Amino acid sequence: MAKVKSDKTFFHGKSESTGVLLINLGTPQEPTKSSVRSFLKQFLSDGRVIEIPKLVWLPILYGFILPRRPEASARNYKKVWMDEGSPLMHYSLRQQKLLQKEMESRFSGPVHIELAMRYGDPDIQAGIDKLQEKGVRRVLILPLYPQYSATTTATSFDEIFKVFSARRWIPELRFVAQYHDHPSYINALAESVKDFWKTNKRSEVLLMSFHGLPKRNLELGDPYFCHCHKTGRLLAEKLDLKESEWKLTFQSRFGKAEWLKPYTDKTLSEMPAEGIKSVDVVCPGFPSDCIETLEEINMENRGYFMEAGGQDYQYIPALNDNPEHVKALADIVQQHTQGWPETESDWQASNAEKQSEISKKQAQKHGAKL
Amino acid sequence: MAKVKSDKTFFHGKSESTGVLLINLGTPQEPTKSSVRSFLKQFLSDGRVIEIPKLVWLPILYGFILPRRPEASARNYKKVWMDEGSPLMHYSLRQQKLLQKEMESRFSGPVHIELAMRYGDPDIQAGIDKLQEKGVRRVLILPLYPQYSATTTATSFDEIFKVFSARRWIPELRFVAQYHDHPSYINALAESVKDFWKTNKRSEVLLMSFHGLPKRNLELGDPYFCHCHKTGRLLAEKLDLKESEWKLTFQSRFGKAEWLKPYTDKTLSEMPAEGIKSVDVVCPGFPSDCIETLEEINMENRGYFMEAGGQDYQYIPALNDNPEHVKALADIVQQHTQGWPETESDWQASNAEKQSEISKKQAQKHGAKL
Repeated sequence: MAKVKSDKTFFHGKSESTGVLLINLGTPQEPTKSSVRSFLKQFLSDGRVIEIPKLVWLPILYGFILPRRPEASARNYKKVWMDEGSPLMHYSLRQQKLLQKEMESRFSGPVHIELAMRYGDPDIQAGIDKLQEKGVRRVLILPLYPQYSATTTATSFDEIFKVFSARRWIPELRFVAQYHDHPSYINALAESVKDFWKTNKRSEVLLMSFHGLPKRNLELGDPYFCHCHKTGRLLAEKLDLKESEWKLTFQSRFGKAEWLKPYTDKTLSEMPAEGIKSVDVVCPGFPSDCIETLEEINMENRGYFMEAGGQDYQYIPALNDNPEHVKALADIVQQHTQGWPETESDWQASNAEKQSEISKKQAQKHGAKL
Repeated sequence: MAKVKSDKTFFHGKSESTGVLLINLGTPQEPTKSSVRSFLKQFLSDGRVIEIPKLVWLPILYGFILPRRPEASARNYKKVWMDEGSPLMHYSLRQQKLLQKEMESRFSGPVHIELAMRYGDPDIQAGIDKLQEKGVRRVLILPLYPQYSATTTATSFDEIFKVFSARRWIPELRFVAQYHDHPSYINALAESVKDFWKTNKRSEVLLMSFHGLPKRNLELGDPYFCHCHKTGRLLAEKLDLKESEWKLTFQSRFGKAEWLKPYTDKTLSEMPAEGIKSVDVVCPGFPSDCIETLEEINMENRGYFMEAGGQDYQYIPALNDNPEHVKALADIVQQHTQGWPETESDWQASNAEKQSEISKKQAQKHGAKL
């Protein structure tokens, strides 16, 4: 075993709190070739993401992908970059801030929300460090992936496992594995679509586009495909859509293997010939707008639809910092933190301080250097 | 990354359930030299247990300990072996069985309690397999160590982390890190002492003996010493003991380094000279009787006390399968599983079946082989 890291943040009398670590995928720091290259290198070296033997994959990654893709990818990042920086980072930070405020109003005791990225910065180790420095002894891990996949959720969990396997004092951990059918999440999606339709003319079809995966992952037992379909079905039910009024597709195919079908780009190219001239596209699997929604869906795929004879193409933004999204995340946090002292209505600052003071005095009696 | 194990236990329409994995340390299968040797080899190879660089430790382990200790240890195991087998295994299985019954009465939905041992059999991988075969999608990890230590709790967590880092579909996980000050656990301890005093004459002093650790572990940040002291203080308060009526000590010292003090054996040898001729000994850190309580405390340490001039020495059994212990474990499980559907009062078999049936039909529509 590697040497374990000791807990240097603890001192007797320090007040305990509950923490939540939000995890998203990550983003390059800048829309530049070198920044994209270093991000892609880490992302595409993850064995949960690319399930090809390293001996086969690494020559492809280093020989073809990393020399070529970053330049094109950086151009796409530039198209969607905001004044505030990376859209994914901007909205993730907003979610963290708003959720912090919301949980403070819901919990009796202290709570700290931190944000980490699976690839790039701030990394998961840094997120855990920040929580532990704040005296967190109970941590809820909440990956911002509503639908479970080994390529996203499990690799985030792996990294948490790795961090804590090398620490002496592991806090109480709980993991949210998915929230694909959580009523508050479905409600937030439905409200965001309805809000869009209040100010924009409704199209003939609502297309729900989820990030794709190789079909092989489904065959090997990844529940992602099923989770996406359940989210889609529940959203369609909540919006009272007839079967002809919505479609579910998978985007972002990469490589030559067969991926989850139908493909978003192919579907959009075929729709005008089938008589569908207007479409609204929503991406329910993405909690924040990012290159996959803003460039791939709102620009590239818009082009395929219009070139094929489409007339109206509207992209409905991700949930981002919508109040209903923050409420949904807060409901999920609340569901999964029950039983922890800080969440309980009988938690009292004076009592927590008193207990902490008793423990401190006892520790001093036993010779602790505080 | 090692190749991940796919989930072969899932099929569409399978009903979901909550699971609890109880983890204890383990025991040799038989009180024989070879069985003890293989158990000790695994236990003492754990880098969380023996924090000495492998290059230094392995020659000691293979050169001195494994050739010598198993024979003496097997003799000790023979002294405490029950008709039912290993006491630790016997009581752990009883706890599993009784907790299963108790949780069935408390939860609305299906729940499965499994037992695993950190060393020896049934191992943690096997425990997880059994739960997953039963359709468990939410798992509470409950190590049967009331006081947290990296040498016990953290190494159990490590093994859970290892198992799931190699699986595709990780269920929703929650971990109980300690219950050293849980009111129901303190109550169960207090009741077991009071019950003992109802049928046995109460001695002058109640000695609480906990398993020891090298003092260095405390200095590096292991909270075990503090947790033991808090358990002791709360138990003494609950029993209305004056300061002169109880002592807290640490047993099972091994090797030449300084361990947590005061030592149980030294304390017991000194008590008669201080005028204390009768003592009741309880081991609040051990949920089940085992070689450390039955042989070390009830036999070996009894000898030290009597040889030094003591007159009455009584060992108060571990909580084992006491109804109050089962209630305490059930209260802990209930505290930590809130928010999971099967624990909620609105869970209904008919509704769960209906949802499962809808998902199955949808899956068939999308071409799933069920």
